Amino acid sequence: MRDVLPDEVELRDTATHAIVGVYRSHGFRRIETPALESLRLLVGSEGGENEKLIFKVLKRGDELQSAVARGDGELADLGLRFDLTVPLARYYAENQARLPDPLKAIQIGPVWRAERPQRGRYRQFTQCDIDVVGVGGLVTEVELILATCEALARLGLTGLTVRLSDRRVLTLIARHCGFAADRQSSFFIAFDKLDKIGREGVLAELRAAGHDPDALTRFERLLPALLDQETSLASLERALTPRAEDLVAFESLAAILAVVAPELPTGARVVFDAALVRGMGYYTGTVFEIGSPAFPASIAGGGRYDKMVGRFLGRDVPACGFSIGFERLIAILGERGDRRGVLARPATEGVRRIALLVNDDTALPRALQAARALREQGDLVSLEVRRKNTRKQLDDLTAHGFSDYGVVEAGKSAATVKPLRQPG
Amino acid sequence: MRDVLPDEVELRDTATHAIVGVYRSHGFRRIETPALESLRLLVGSEGGENEKLIFKVLKRGDELQSAVARGDGELADLGLRFDLTVPLARYYAENQARLPDPLKAIQIGPVWRAERPQRGRYRQFTQCDIDVVGVGGLVTEVELILATCEALARLGLTGLTVRLSDRRVLTLIARHCGFAADRQSSFFIAFDKLDKIGREGVLAELRAAGHDPDALTRFERLLPALLDQETSLASLERALTPRAEDLVAFESLAAILAVVAPELPTGARVVFDAALVRGMGYYTGTVFEIGSPAFPASIAGGGRYDKMVGRFLGRDVPACGFSIGFERLIAILGERGDRRGVLARPATEGVRRIALLVNDDTALPRALQAARALREQGDLVSLEVRRKNTRKQLDDLTAHGFSDYGVVEAGKSAATVKPLRQPG
Repeated sequence: MRDVLPDEVELRDTATHAIVGVYRSHGFRRIETPALESLRLLVGSEGGENEKLIFKVLKRGDELQSAVARGDGELADLGLRFDLTVPLARYYAENQARLPDPLKAIQIGPVWRAERPQRGRYRQFTQCDIDVVGVGGLVTEVELILATCEALARLGLTGLTVRLSDRRVLTLIARHCGFAADRQSSFFIAFDKLDKIGREGVLAELRAAGHDPDALTRFERLLPALLDQETSLASLERALTPRAEDLVAFESLAAILAVVAPELPTGARVVFDAALVRGMGYYTGTVFEIGSPAFPASIAGGGRYDKMVGRFLGRDVPACGFSIGFERLIAILGERGDRRGVLARPATEGVRRIALLVNDDTALPRALQAARALREQGDLVSLEVRRKNTRKQLDDLTAHGFSDYGVVEAGKSAATVKPLRQPG
Repeated sequence: MRDVLPDEVELRDTATHAIVGVYRSHGFRRIETPALESLRLLVGSEGGENEKLIFKVLKRGDELQSAVARGDGELADLGLRFDLTVPLARYYAENQARLPDPLKAIQIGPVWRAERPQRGRYRQFTQCDIDVVGVGGLVTEVELILATCEALARLGLTGLTVRLSDRRVLTLIARHCGFAADRQSSFFIAFDKLDKIGREGVLAELRAAGHDPDALTRFERLLPALLDQETSLASLERALTPRAEDLVAFESLAAILAVVAPELPTGARVVFDAALVRGMGYYTGTVFEIGSPAFPASIAGGGRYDKMVGRFLGRDVPACGFSIGFERLIAILGERGDRRGVLARPATEGVRRIALLVNDDTALPRALQAARALREQGDLVSLEVRRKNTRKQLDDLTAHGFSDYGVVEAGKSAATVKPLRQPG
């Protein structure tokens, strides 16, 4: 967890403003869920490894005392959300009658994971999700992908690659190789590590997990095709010889690829990637990620999870979402030095940030009047107590982004505002 | 804790946008602190009753196991922040070298208190604070009060009353009556309940607490003057007969009243209120609240807390803040029906919210093109899968704020956009 300084908050606000603007223009609306959810809800949500990282909140009062007395380990009843998807499913189930149908939701907010802190990874971080709940069909996937690409492009990210697969194709791969039906998630978890531990690492992990050696051989034989970014969807389809009822996943992927490609921002592309797994157990159909040459890992990821709302509502509801890794995005924008660059909000562009140095308390009434007049022109005006070392004070103000200053003394006429430093 | 639906999020965003805009124009900048702080830091922060309401986070892994084994009750190591002031003091102490001096901070974010839920009170709620850390003098109090009044006025709140006192005057009252020096906080806590339990209730509580009967008699004699909103600062000063070194509080209050009054928004007023206590133990000087005829309790409150940063930094740093009760504000604005009224953001005013009904997947490419063209004109466009009962679908879209619609079919020319309902 960490503090955010004013410059970075402004960068984050600017990025949020741009992203929300794009999503709103696509008909999405912001919603909010609380940070704390019932622990029972968070555990068993198929959130994969993330469930192990829940910050648990101690019971209170009598309940805590009796839990301690019982000594059965049920000390907590609430948990901090580890993503925005599980809370969304609960939110939809509880509020459905008052929500648009389908719900097209924007969520931007902090999530918490009790990970060991490391560079670029924090135990509190911001996620930025859009989800469509309540309707199936291609429109959803297409809109999620295009809106997210547009948001990233709006922030100046270029050369975006959208990678696309389908959890059902992954299941076919597992079945084709002959991995036992009840061991498929173990296969997915190993396969998902391909980026990190490579081909040999994945094979070693599968071997160690005691998978059927024949399945391993068949998987090894299929691997070159799975790894080849140019393997077309059609050729994988031929290799896997799907049954008629399994063709729908291939058809859906082909249609999304065809419809999305011509609508992408300039320089962006969409590809089928058979090796795209995505960690969560809750995905049921399409999965996707967006990468950029500016960052080694993916910047955004998501997919279809048609079974999750059913856990809360008792009947399945189609749902699909896309999540921007907001902290990664901010890291990229920060390194690009966008603090006062491309991202400067129109609202503050050309606006003067003026420090009015108030000589002493007797000058305060005059300073208030001067500040009000300047604000009415659209300037940002900060009253500052004048220090003895005015020269040093002006240097500090410059360092913290002030552009102009004035000095107000009692009895003198209104302050003259001068630029703090010469341009260039 | 509760979910926030799209209409309310938009109201909240609009209010936030207006408030931050005003505060920024006064030279304040947003900062962010994490939701979780070390429990040790939160406990013992003189946060009054709020410290008892901390949501505590269970230790993890080995640390939890050994804490359970020891059975000494130290099961938690982190806590959710119960306000934004204690974290700000820690933030300032840790980041001082990289922050502007003085720091003029805006904080808007959730805080958590494990209260019994009741109408209008939630266990997660948003606070909206401005603070100035690092400089003393009148400028700070004056700017905090004027900026906050301007923000509330910008949101359409009228008839604002700023009530002002000073913790040092309160101490003088206690001393004048003869309450024991080490029992003053017990006196403050009872006096603070004047609004709720009335004059007799306060006296009964003081009696029950075993205060000196003579002090009680003197306090009872002083009460009419303390309760009289028209009691001038000068007449209370005469009644209390302060020593020369205690005059500074009266002088400071008089100066703030004189400087603030002419600069307030139209219809707002500032008064001295000897009965203004404010719950927190950490206040050291000026305290203030803002009330409105639209709401029984105060909408904003704050004060000077010159000793808090010293707990973290080892030396005292002047600090003063003002906190808007954001949930109360939203309740007032919501009841006033501001969802699409006074507060409509310029950015969305006059913008069409268009639903493009996509007949089937084959119409999708054409729909995407039409949507893009409309967005380029500034419209918000949502692609929606056309339902069999289109009439019902159009009613639903109207109910959720869409203004226009079009239907897109494959092979037809571009969609015609029509208003969803006749005006008036």
